[in-house]
Order: sequence, then C-alpha cells, then structure tokens
Amino acid sequence: MILVTGGTFDKEYDELNGTLYFKETHVPEMLKLGRCAIEIDVRTLLMIDSLEMTDADRDIILNYCSKCEEEKIVITHGTDTMEITARLLGEASIPKTIVLTGAMIPYKFGSSDGFFNLGSAIAFAETLPKGVYVAMNGRYFHWSNVRKNKKTGVFEEI
Amino acid sequence: MILVTGGTFDKEYDELNGTLYFKETHVPEMLKLGRCAIEIDVRTLLMIDSLEMTDADRDIILNYCSKCEEEKIVITHGTDTMEITARLLGEASIPKTIVLTGAMIPYKFGSSDGFFNLGSAIAFAETLPKGVYVAMNGRYFHWSNVRKNKKTGVFEEI
Amino acid sequence: MILVTGGTFDKEYDELNGTLYFKETHVPEMLKLGRCAIEIDVRTLLMIDSLEMTDADRDIILNYCSKCEEEKIVITHGTDTMEITARLLGEASIPKTIVLTGAMIPYKFGSSDGFFNLGSAIAFAETLPKGVYVAMNGRYFHWSNVRKNKKTGVFEEI
Amino acid sequence: MILVTGGTFDKEYDELNGTLYFKETHVPEMLKLGRCAIEIDVRTLLMIDSLEMTDADRDIILNYCSKCEEEKIVITHGTDTMEITARLLGEASIPKTIVLTGAMIPYKFGSSDGFFNLGSAIAFAETLPKGVYVAMNGRYFHWSNVRKNKKTGVFEEI
Repeated sequence: MILVTGGTFDKEYDELNGTLYFKETHVPEMLKLGRCAIEIDVRTLLMIDSLEMTDADRDIILNYCSKCEEEKIVITHGTDTMEITARLLGEASIPKTIVLTGAMIPYKFGSSDGFFNLGSAIAFAETLPKGVYVAMNGRYFHWSNVRKNKKTGVFEEI
Repeated sequence: MILVTGGTFDKEYDELNGTLYFKETHVPEMLKLGRCAIEIDVRTLLMIDSLEMTDADRDIILNYCSKCEEEKIVITHGTDTMEITARLLGEASIPKTIVLTGAMIPYKFGSSDGFFNLGSAIAFAETLPKGVYVAMNGRYFHWSNVRKNKKTGVFEEI
Repeated sequence: MILVTGGTFDKEYDELNGTLYFKETHVPEMLKLGRCAIEIDVRTLLMIDSLEMTDADRDIILNYCSKCEEEKIVITHGTDTMEITARLLGEASIPKTIVLTGAMIPYKFGSSDGFFNLGSAIAFAETLPKGVYVAMNGRYFHWSNVRKNKKTGVFEEI
Repeated sequence: MILVTGGTFDKEYDELNGTLYFKETHVPEMLKLGRCAIEIDVRTLLMIDSLEMTDADRDIILNYCSKCEEEKIVITHGTDTMEITARLLGEASIPKTIVLTGAMIPYKFGSSDGFFNLGSAIAFAETLPKGVYVAMNGRYFHWSNVRKNKKTGVFEEI
C-alpha cells in the first residue's frame, strides 16, 4: 500500500498566482507510467509540506500504519522532516515493512527524482525485513540512522 | 555496477531520417537525475536491440559478470529477449546478485518507465540474495520463472 | 483552421513492437497547452509520413483548401515533402493565407520543435498576406523559394 | 533581438528550500530546441518577477529599445504587468516592431506555454508593422488595447 502525505512529490504550480500548492496526488499516474503490475492501494492521508506537519498529523500516519491490514507500506513524504516521522514509526515497533520516500523536485516539473525514488521504495518494501526505512538517493537507511544533509539535499547516515 | 547493453532504454530518434537508433547510454544522466548517491560504475558492453542479440553477445555479458569484481550488478537490456539472457546467466550459477531491467518506452521520449525500473532494479540489487533476477513492472522475478507477455508487454511468471 | 496530414509531428512509439506509428493528432492537446485563445477548427485529412504522400493525397489537401470557408489555414505536414505540397497549393493561386509547418522531432518525444513551430505558423497565418508559405525554424518562406536541406534538416531559400 | 526581463518564463525550482527563483534565462536553449535559424541576439536586461518591476526597471527597457540598432524586438516579460510595460513603450512611439510575450507556466516545468508563445512572438515581430504589441494565447494585441484577465489568466481586448 502507498500512503500519500504530500511533500515536494505532489507540489504543483498555480499559474494564476505564481505559487506552489497541492491539488491531488500524482502517485496513481506514476504507477501507471511505471507499468507497475503489483496491485497497490493508494490512500491519501495528508496533502501538506512536511515543514508544516504537526504531531497530530504524525499520529494519523502512525495510527494508520498500525491498524491497516497491509504488511508492506510505502509512505510518500516531504524530505525536510522525513527522519522525524520515520523515528516516530520506528520507535512504535510496528511489525511491518514501512518505507518512506520523497522527492527533491516536484513530479510535475519534468526533471523529478520522484519517479526513480518511487521505483526504489516499492522494491525495498518488497524485499527488506520488517522495520522502518527511508529510501532516497538509490539507497535505504534504517530509521535510527538517517538524516537529510540540509546543504546538499542528500540523505546520509548520522 | 551497471552494465549497459542497449535496448529500448537507450533508443533515440534520428531527426534526419526519422528512424530509431542508438547513440550513447542515458544511464549516467538518469543516475544524476535520480540524485543517486551510491558509487556506481557504468560500463557499456553492447548498444543493440535485444532482438539482434547473438550468442556471442550473450557470452560477452556472461564473461563480464563472471570476471568482474563487483558482487551486485544491474544490466540494462532490451525486453524482448531479457528472459533468454537471464536464463544463460542463471544457469551459470555466478555467486553474485544480478538484476536485469529495461524499458517499454525510450528514456528520451519523456514518458518512459525506464527511470522507475532503474530505481527498482538498483534497490533489488542491494537487497536480494545471490542469484539472477528480472526487475520489471515494479516486481522482481527469478530467472527460472519469468517471461514477457508479448500481447500486454508486461512481465509475468511462467 | 488547422489541417492535419500527419508527419513527424504526430508520430508515436509503439511499445509492443518498438516501431513508430500514427494514432491520433496531438494538435488539439498542443493548442490547449499553448492556452491558445483563438477559435481554431482542427481537421484531420491524412495521418501519414510525407514520404508516402501520393498525388491523390495532395489533391485531397488542395481540394479542401480551395473549398473550405476559412481564409487562414495552417497545415501540419511531414518535412520531407513539404515543399512539394506547398508548390502544388501555391500554383493553384487560392486566395487564402496557407501556412505549412512540421517538426523534426515527434511532439510526444519531449524535446520537440513542433510546439514552437505551431506557435509561429499560427502567428504567420494571422499576419501574412494571401499566399502559400512554409513556416519552419522560426522563419517563413514563400512556396516558390524554399527547400529542406537534407543534410542539416534546416529549411532554406533555394 | 530578444530582451529578457525574467517572468514566469524563467522561474526555476530551488530544490534545497522549495521556493521558486531566477537563475539564468532559458531563451537560448529554447531557440536551439526550436531549431530557430534566424540570427537572434539574446540580452538579459532584468531577471525579475514582473510584480516587482519598478519604474526604474521599465526605464531600462525603454532606453534599451530606443537606443539599440535592431528594428525588431521580442521582450520576455512576466504576464502580471506586461500591459503596463507595453503601454510605456507604446506611448514612446519608438519606430520599431516590439513584441512582448511571456508564459503562465515556467519553461523548466515541462508543460509550459512559453515555447509556443516564443514561436508566435518571433513570427509576429517578423511580420507586424512598426508598433508595440503583446503576443499571448496565439494572438497579438496592440499595446493600447490589451489586458490580462486575472481570473482566467487569458489576455483579452479591453
């Protein structure tokens, strides 16, 4: 299952006022473009910039991951606070494989890394043992050992 | 390491005569776009349509996989005969993780599945045990149990 | 009015057999993307590679241009024989402004010149006096003085 | 000649802080993609959002248009205040053909109207008599009779 929370992944350009905003998720369109043949349920939990994600928002994600039936979950998430949500989920010790991923460039802007990241996140969710991970830059990181380098935008071990 | 053999992945449009052809691989450009932070050596072994791949061509791939130092190898390959090359490599029992991937639409044509497939293939190469696999449509298949459905273009178990 | 005859403009990639083919024209989608606010009727007369255009095909174009009510006509056309169709229309001395245009790269392939050419062709049709012209490479050419340079792919005066 | 002043045309996405900004103009890249064969000098006068354009900025544009040698000038400009700059230039009665154009979506974001608009603006500059015009939505407007409809984003006569 893929849980959508927004983030750069899904940002769009509002041509009437020149700002960035969220409309609907592009994840189903991306799965179609990737000719993804796995049956994946896509559910939008939030549609926000991760810098604006509150504790209450993170509880929504945590609750959903705990209670849903699926054992393999990909979460699309803004990169700025991805490590915080990963830690919350990791410390909850949910017996599932949960992989958070995101993008540095919005999918709609043509040259996005999001499509590559989604491919790798789905693959990691299929193959990694139970636990919580971040999938970015072609790599996976355990929730307890990952941070975004704010200067380079690249994820790294702590 | 990524071994390039051509395939739809790398096809380009020749604007002077209106045909498709191969020039150079787009894999390094794709890794950069994906902000891939793994050190990956990219080596072009062949640059051909897999329908034209001969036994001699496949021996080049087999030899390279056997003799190179890397233990995790992604091979970009045309989809039409990917299962044949996978079987040859699989029967050779090389003690490495080898993942073949490809694309239905050329990377240069905008709406390609190749970028998604490359992300998943790299992830599968990092996590799957030693063996030979095909990574297409968001899934992985063991070399002994995969074929391309010629009518739908989707890979499936035999 | 825009008359569609096919050409590189509208070529698509058939992912099941790896060849180029024609399906439907992309002209309406392009007008929408260009936020074109002129009421333009789009009519598909042919959907072929201009290397395969016969005298009978050209007669269809000529008849349509002569008999339709519109006085400003843009024709999308393969570049290889665009000058031949332009000459046929030019010698017929139809009292209308007719502008032929095309593309070196299919619109669907991402980096096409077609969208730029369509913008210029529509502008030339609005402003040029009655006569038959070719609009390519940001320029316009009178039908009696134009050819495609087969080596560079660029249109030039004879 | 093409005078660049910024506007949505040239906006980019800053992947480190998630905002839109200006770097360099994409006009030369666009002319190359359009296989434009006219010798066109491209000069960057400003690189700003037109909502932030001051009277002093407009004087820079006016002075440049008056004093340069070229008689056909295209100006890329933000759409929000394009009509104000057009009026300033129009009232100055410079004996040249000056065409202002812009975009609703940044060129770098894939689905931009800018490439279409640039093609039409260049064509209008080649064919229209001396005067100042706005080229948007496939149409041209005289400077004395144009405004942007803020609700639809489409240019119209007053």
